Amino acid sequence: MIHKLTSEERSTQLAQLHGWVAVAGRDAIQRHFKFADFNEAFGFMTRVAIKAQEMDHHPEWFNVYNKVEITLSTHEANGLTERDIKLARFIDQAGKDAQKG
Amino acid sequence: MIHKLTSEERSTQLAQLHGWVAVAGRDAIQRHFKFADFNEAFGFMTRVAIKAQEMDHHPEWFNVYNKVEITLSTHEANGLTERDIKLARFIDQAGKDAQKG
Repeated sequence: MIHKLTSEERSTQLAQLHGWVAVAGRDAIQRHFKFADFNEAFGFMTRVAIKAQEMDHHPEWFNVYNKVEITLSTHEANGLTERDIKLARFIDQAGKDAQKG
Repeated sequence: MIHKLTSEERSTQLAQLHGWVAVAGRDAIQRHFKFADFNEAFGFMTRVAIKAQEMDHHPEWFNVYNKVEITLSTHEANGLTERDIKLARFIDQAGKDAQKG
């Protein structure tokens, strides 16, 4: 079974990410993105989808027009794991790439 | 301004769609899809995204793994319009195509 992050690991890792917040009532993290338009938002989502599939670790996400809300958690561990941090790092970079694109 | 459907038009149109339900407290419709896996779900979403962009009419949607929840409404009309019905028809077909794929 995949190792759930300890509080200390969690704090250290979260400090290195951008704009992620803890989800109330769940051991999960969430970030909101706002893009120029739907094309930019869905282009970003497509990059994240391909990465998620490669990692076999999928986000929970909501989109409307230029907005994307992403929640990460590891169901098997019932909480946050290294996989979430790795995917969050990719998402941060893909978001940055899309927004400057 | 785009014409908001009357109750009668709404009923007639909804009867021709598949599995759409009214959203509580909003003049909007929603349908839940379940696919074989994430690949099938996101493939479906990609077809819908391209159609939505072409129509300049975008869904509100949520995805986690093989599940997709789609809500349609026309913000400019503050309710349901012909555009929602047209997009819902495309979504029904794309869902069917993906699920038999």
